[in-house]
Order: sequence, then structure tokens, then C-alpha cells
Amino acid sequence: MWYETAVSRILNISYPIIQAPMAGGPTRPGLVAAISNSGGLGSFGAGYTSPDKLRLEIHATRKLTDKRFAVNVFVPETVIRDQDKIKKIIKAMKPYRDRFGLDEQAASEDINLYFHAQIKVIIEEKVPVVSFTFGIPDGEILDMLRSENIKTIGTATTVDEAIELEKKGVELIVAQGSEAGGHRGSFQKDPEHSLVGTMALIPQVVDNVKTPVVAAGGIMDGRGIVASFALGASGVQLGTAFLTCIESGASDLHKEAIIKSNESDTRLTRMFSGKLARGINNRFIEEMEQYKDIVPDYPIQNAFTRDIRKASAESKDTDYMSLWAGQGVRLSRSLPAAELMSILVDQTDEMINKIKDW
Amino acid sequence: MWYETAVSRILNISYPIIQAPMAGGPTRPGLVAAISNSGGLGSFGAGYTSPDKLRLEIHATRKLTDKRFAVNVFVPETVIRDQDKIKKIIKAMKPYRDRFGLDEQAASEDINLYFHAQIKVIIEEKVPVVSFTFGIPDGEILDMLRSENIKTIGTATTVDEAIELEKKGVELIVAQGSEAGGHRGSFQKDPEHSLVGTMALIPQVVDNVKTPVVAAGGIMDGRGIVASFALGASGVQLGTAFLTCIESGASDLHKEAIIKSNESDTRLTRMFSGKLARGINNRFIEEMEQYKDIVPDYPIQNAFTRDIRKASAESKDTDYMSLWAGQGVRLSRSLPAAELMSILVDQTDEMINKIKDW
Repeated sequence: MWYETAVSRILNISYPIIQAPMAGGPTRPGLVAAISNSGGLGSFGAGYTSPDKLRLEIHATRKLTDKRFAVNVFVPETVIRDQDKIKKIIKAMKPYRDRFGLDEQAASEDINLYFHAQIKVIIEEKVPVVSFTFGIPDGEILDMLRSENIKTIGTATTVDEAIELEKKGVELIVAQGSEAGGHRGSFQKDPEHSLVGTMALIPQVVDNVKTPVVAAGGIMDGRGIVASFALGASGVQLGTAFLTCIESGASDLHKEAIIKSNESDTRLTRMFSGKLARGINNRFIEEMEQYKDIVPDYPIQNAFTRDIRKASAESKDTDYMSLWAGQGVRLSRSLPAAELMSILVDQTDEMINKIKDW
Repeated sequence: MWYETAVSRILNISYPIIQAPMAGGPTRPGLVAAISNSGGLGSFGAGYTSPDKLRLEIHATRKLTDKRFAVNVFVPETVIRDQDKIKKIIKAMKPYRDRFGLDEQAASEDINLYFHAQIKVIIEEKVPVVSFTFGIPDGEILDMLRSENIKTIGTATTVDEAIELEKKGVELIVAQGSEAGGHRGSFQKDPEHSLVGTMALIPQVVDNVKTPVVAAGGIMDGRGIVASFALGASGVQLGTAFLTCIESGASDLHKEAIIKSNESDTRLTRMFSGKLARGINNRFIEEMEQYKDIVPDYPIQNAFTRDIRKASAESKDTDYMSLWAGQGVRLSRSLPAAELMSILVDQTDEMINKIKDW
């Protein structure tokens, strides 16, 4: 059967369908558990989550499912605190802070410090699968995870990144096409020069690694799933499709914006977080584009925009929110996650039956 | 069978595989005829070709095949001759002209003037299929083509462009994903905001038009063909894959550059022609990027860079050539076009047989 792939076997799940880890709200325990209960792999996006909060989220998820799920962590990188850029960007964003009556810019905490403590929680809590974004953890951490029989999933945006992940012994590789919403997982070259469409990326990655490949980017329904398998992937990862599900913790404004958007409404921007990410175009992206050369590194800029994004959401104003979304937005729907999973499986079955008549 | 689709029926060809019209050299009669003789649809990219030359090319192609083939024309647009930009860009490109000992910049002829005369030649020569890029011809021309039973293929990069093509009665729609090499076919919005990956673009276009859709962008082999069909396309259009064929008129330097490139080596640039196009990154693209705000409209800039590109090629120097290529470059091969066609058909058969076992 189409769903009996290396990805299902390695992850020990029924369907090789992974709910993308979307850090910052959408991946609530209800969503993660619903996907895992439906035979896929739910993923908690822990990038911005403190280790203590992560433990609570894992416990909450376990209350809702006895199935396997993943936690996704951001691999820390060297951050340059360019005081000149910081001073300039704070000044540039002052009008937004004033607009929402926000106090002086708070200092940014370094969420990169979470990483090691998050890994400790994941091991202690015996989370069965860990996925990584923005790089590859060092060998010691990978060895530790292996010795605990925790499966590892890396994220690549180019063939060379996939090859490096394989060399380090990561068990599955998500190949993230340029259609994908949210942050680019690039960790070798400039992310702007690592934007390869899923149709071109998947076969080129598959040809250059032995590790099973999970396709990501623009996949929204059974057509995308079968297309990904035809390209050589052994699994798929969908973010935007699950973001608008009932159980998703994304704000209603974010969900509505996705549902009413079209395929060319998204933009790539570094202005929300310091890292390139795809979201629905809005006033903040357009107005801030002029400052792209002075944007401080992630996660500094991410901390600087946090309360602006929050205040914008609280004012029911999408102009200054980060409305992460991929390019498949016309295919998004509001429905329970279990129902979407069942539709995805049925559509895939149907498409394969149709192909049998070709 | 998989190849009996609306595209094969409308075009009256065996396999719904179209060789993309690549204006400016690659689509020599030998290539066009080889594709058509192999059961696909060869296309002559006539964008830069004078009506007299076009007639000769059609005659030369007819000597090599009695099968149906297409001619592709560029739909003219309003060109603003911004003298300030022109003065500045000529100055900016002076070092390149000096480098190759080229005389004072010649005035640019207006190749947009070719269009109506090209259509006349196409009708007189009873070319069976016409494809369009950069827009939609006016109703009078479409009526004339219809009355001659000449099939029409339009190019869309967004759903709205596809809908407009359908409204005008174009018979097939090529949906060009962001992976595609060469010029973006966008004609409604800024091409930089119409860059949708093939995986996301095809199903969204298919859902919004009744006209059969041909997938383009990043398709290089049987995997891409089956993936495109799974996404809902009724045919595929491949450019880069055919550009490196023996019969292609692309220069050896261009072919070699494609074969040794990888998936993240291409860039989108307006600096060669004034219109956004994807090619392998080189010195010209990198150095000229700083002038992107003063680049004159297509086809003015195209004429301004023509002898620089030519001189660069003659000096066996790829630094200043337009090395158009899509993102599937790792999958490119040097072989006769008929052999590639046969491989594509076999790979598609095999993939479909494989899927029958899923």
C-alpha cells in the first residue's frame, strides 16, 4: 500500500503524513494529538517554548493520545548582536510601538539558550521523535538521542544540506520546497539563494541521499501527496493545510487570512524574525522592506517584533501580524484535523486508483 | 493510457509532452522536429525572430517533420522609453562594452513590431499550434487563428492569469511554476509577486479553469511528469531538459553550464532583458543587480545587452552570457532529443506501473 513507506516504518505510524511543526502557537496539544490519533505524526513546534512549558505541552499531548508524536526544536546558531543595526531598527519600528501604545523596546531574551534544556526534557519525557530546523545538532546530542531510540528528522532546503544531514546520521530528511510557509530551514547558504520549488527539489534530493525523504512545500491535498511520492518522497509534511484546522492554536484572524488568500499573496520576509520566512503580505512586510539591510539577526528581531505582533492580533488588525502561510492557500479549509487527515488519506487512495486506470 | 489526455487530443499528438519554446537560439528546426517526430510537440521560440526568418525556420522544420509543431510568439506590451534610465544603464554597462571592445551602444530596434507580421506568417504557413507568452493577443487575432483552426496555448503564472486566458477562449493553458527557466510569463501583476512553485500552482489553477492545463517548471523526467498529472495537469512542458539535447541550438557553454550546475545555482534577474527571467548565476547578474531600479523596459534592455552576451559567448566566457535554466538542472543530460523523449515516456510508464503496485 502507498502508506507503507520507509517513513511510516521508521516513525512507526500508519500514514507517512507529518503535521509540520509550526512554532509560536498553532501546534496546540489538541492538534498534535488529533493528527497522531488519525495515524499521522503530529509535531509540536517548540522553537519558542521554554523547557518548563515544553514539558507541560508534552504532558497535555500525552493526555490526548497514546500515539507517537514529534517535538521540533530550533538548532542554535551564532548570533551577532550588531548594536548599530539594533539601534536603527528600534528607531524604525518606533511608529508601530507608538501605534499600539507599547513601552520602550524590551531587551530580547536569548531563546537559543533553550535548546540544550529542551533536548533534556525530550529525553526525560521519552518523546519518540525529534525534528530539527535551522541546522544539525552536534554529534554528542545526536548520539544521546540515538541511544534513547529517539528518531531524528532534519530539514534541508538544498541537496547539499540533505547530504550533510545524512552524513550526521539523521534518520529522515524533510526537503522543504520554496512553496512552504513560515521559516526557511536553510542552514548552509543564504536562504534567499536556497529557494527551490518542491517539484524540482524532491527528485534532486532523492537522487543524492539514501535517507528517506519527506516532501514539504505546497502540499495541500491527495494530489500533492501522490505527486510527492511520484517525485520519490517516502512521506509528506503539511503545515498550512493543518494550520486552519479547528484544533490549531493559530488565531482566527490568521486562519481567516489564509482561507481568503490566493496563491500569489504570500511574500518572503526577514522583517518579522531576522530569518527569511513566508507569510501573507501585509502592511508590516511592505513598510519594513526598506529596512531589510539593517534587520538584526534572528532571534533578536523576533523578540523586537513580538509585542507588536501580539498587540496587532489583540486589536483584530492583521496589518502587523506574522501571517505565516505557504503558497497552497486556495486549498485551505476550516475543519477538524481528524477529518482533514481522513480526507487526505481518501483522496490519496482515490488518486492512486485513478492512476491504476491510466 | 496516461498519454491520452485532453492535451494530446486537442494538439493531435501522441504524448502530451511539449518542448518549451526557448527563444533566442535553442529551438532549432532539428530540435523542434525531433520532439514532434517522437510524438511530442516541438515549439519554435520566435520571440526575437523576424517574420522572414520565421518563415524560413518553419520551412526548415517542415523538411524534417510532417508532424505538428508550435510557434511561440511574445505578445507586445506598452514600452516606456525612459530616457533617464536608458542614459544611466548605458553608462553602467560601459565597462562590459569596453571589455569586449564593443562600439557605442546601438539603438534598440523594437522587436514588438514583429508580432503582427509573425501572426500573418503563422497563418499563411498553416502552423497548427501557436503559443503565447507575456499576455493575450486581442480578440481579432484569436478569432482569426480560430477560423484557421490553429490551436492556441497561453501562459499563466497565477490563477487569475489562467482565468483571463480561459475567458478569451485560449484552448490550452501552460501554468508556469517558479522553478521554470528563462522568462517569467507573468502579464497581470509584478512577476516577482507571481512566483508560485509548480506543486502549489497546478492544483490551484486546475481547480479554477475548465481549460486543460499543461504543467511547467522543474519537470525533468518521468517522476515530474507523473507528479504533474497527479496534480491535475493534462500535459507537461519541459524546457531545460530539452535545452541540453544534442539538437538544441544553445551554445556548448550554455549546455555545459547547465549540466554542471546544481538546484540552487539559478537566480531571477531582470538585468539581461528588462523582464524577470531565471538563469544560472554569473558575474553579470551579480554585478548588475545594483542597477535593478534603473533597468529599462523589455525589449530595450534586451537589445542593450545583446552584443555583450554575444561577445561573451564568442570569447568562451560564461560571465556575461544569459544562461537560462530552471531549477531541475541536476537532472539534465546531453543526449539526442528523440532518446530523451523515449526515456521520458518509458520512465512515465514505469512510474505508473510502480504506482499500480502501491
